[in-house]
Amino acid sequence: MDRVLGIDIGGTSIKVGLFSTEGTLDAVTKIPTGEIVSEAAFAVVTNGLKALLRENGGEPDDVIAIGLDVPGPVDDDGEVGMLANIELDPDGLKAAILREFPRANLAFVNDANAAALGELWQGTAKGSKSFVLIAIGTGVGGGVVANGKLISGAFGAGGEIGHITVNRDETESCGCGRKGCLEQYASAKGIVNGYKAACEELGVTPVQLDGPTDTLSIFNAHRAGDKAAKVAIDKMCDYLGYAMAQISAVVDPQVYLIGGGVGGGFKLYSEDLRTAYRKYCLAPSASTRILPASLGNDAAMYGCAFQALSEH
Amino acid sequence: MDRVLGIDIGGTSIKVGLFSTEGTLDAVTKIPTGEIVSEAAFAVVTNGLKALLRENGGEPDDVIAIGLDVPGPVDDDGEVGMLANIELDPDGLKAAILREFPRANLAFVNDANAAALGELWQGTAKGSKSFVLIAIGTGVGGGVVANGKLISGAFGAGGEIGHITVNRDETESCGCGRKGCLEQYASAKGIVNGYKAACEELGVTPVQLDGPTDTLSIFNAHRAGDKAAKVAIDKMCDYLGYAMAQISAVVDPQVYLIGGGVGGGFKLYSEDLRTAYRKYCLAPSASTRILPASLGNDAAMYGCAFQALSEH
Repeated sequence: MDRVLGIDIGGTSIKVGLFSTEGTLDAVTKIPTGEIVSEAAFAVVTNGLKALLRENGGEPDDVIAIGLDVPGPVDDDGEVGMLANIELDPDGLKAAILREFPRANLAFVNDANAAALGELWQGTAKGSKSFVLIAIGTGVGGGVVANGKLISGAFGAGGEIGHITVNRDETESCGCGRKGCLEQYASAKGIVNGYKAACEELGVTPVQLDGPTDTLSIFNAHRAGDKAAKVAIDKMCDYLGYAMAQISAVVDPQVYLIGGGVGGGFKLYSEDLRTAYRKYCLAPSASTRILPASLGNDAAMYGCAFQALSEH
Repeated sequence: MDRVLGIDIGGTSIKVGLFSTEGTLDAVTKIPTGEIVSEAAFAVVTNGLKALLRENGGEPDDVIAIGLDVPGPVDDDGEVGMLANIELDPDGLKAAILREFPRANLAFVNDANAAALGELWQGTAKGSKSFVLIAIGTGVGGGVVANGKLISGAFGAGGEIGHITVNRDETESCGCGRKGCLEQYASAKGIVNGYKAACEELGVTPVQLDGPTDTLSIFNAHRAGDKAAKVAIDKMCDYLGYAMAQISAVVDPQVYLIGGGVGGGFKLYSEDLRTAYRKYCLAPSASTRILPASLGNDAAMYGCAFQALSEH
């Protein structure tokens, strides 16, 4: 039976999904890794993959496609760019995997792009020809699908919507070195910063926060009537809606999907986000739908598997 | 011999190109029309098309594809949206043409989108998989091509890059009803307005202008050392480069093509535009090429013919 693997590469471990070619997730495993830059580390990965197959009645020759999603740019030709947050030798890992899985087609995909493809394969966007996934977590990532295909970009920067400029007057720098990026306001970190600023401006004491990305406590405070939390979430929606209006003037998708950790709170701010988007968008695009993504943290694992399978 | 027609629909006349299936332009004719909303007007069009074929040794049954480009939105399914500047009944015209050209596949394409497809078929973008055409004339239009395919948009607003917001502080309204659109600064009209404002600010007398879109005189003044002209063109480049940086964060094209009437002055401002773009773009996209389009006013005629042929 033909099988497909989707591998979500993180800084200290990888998460692997074993899929059927129809997109059923048959099993998941986590393999602790650390840096993936030596033959020994590559062997940890390939041994883990082989064990997962064995435990599920399969063998390496069953695997026809293996996707790997990485937190960094991957261009239209599948070449991996600079990875800032993980230690990975993509070419070395690819060679090691192909030695053990000779039938497999192997594909690298940017993580937010992979999440979009996951939603296209088995999530909210199933069957959709044009949509944009916005993954809101520590940062803001995106995946743009048009004419049924992902736009990785000539230089791997397709869907880098966290770096759309939304405030030309910003004086503080974004992680990318530019100023006024969407990510500075609509990421988990941005929402927390916005909340703290609102508390200061309103002269109120912030609720207890569990770290610099704890939006959950802010969402709960909003539900309990906290005014500063409302200000912060309104601001997030305003900037996000504004950025989405700019995206619509470029690719005009049928649907926006909101995913990532902050996507979990979608119900709380969905109407404010829709209102903000409609305030800024061109008239023909006012009926674009804005929906929650459905695969949660597994989306990228699904998506990179799908990409590898599609290229097979 | 199979033939293809490309029809450029304007307010008072249509321009028709007769192409081979390989993209050679064999003949061009102009047919005066006026409003195209009645059977009599449709007959003027079809008779003109038949005459063009006859004069070039062909007949209606040779025609396998007919493209029509229109100054308004056309969505992913080829449906024509509201046309603000011309009187046209698209469905009526389509039916009339198909009666006379029964073998032909017929396709409507937005004019700026068609210009992008023209450049893809026979112009600067030949063979390119990802590029954005920016057509600068009375307004600013655009055509986005990714994975080798045009992105018309779910609501026909794909490539509406003249309506990317570049100045959130603008108080005057754009034709679209919103404020601070690229078109307000980088269109021919916008450049003329910018020039007049610069003259006032610098306390100098403007050069003689031939109407509200006469950028040619401003470009000539710039060449002659006119300071206000330099201010206006610098501003145009700054806003355009800024908008292009936003586009790159969405689709990250390999190439930008500058077309339309103002595209003719490309050499004069190309270096300033490249500098502005690099100032605003994400680091990975800094090597995007910025080139002049090559088909001039015929681009849209080529492109709609190509679209109809591709769908055949």
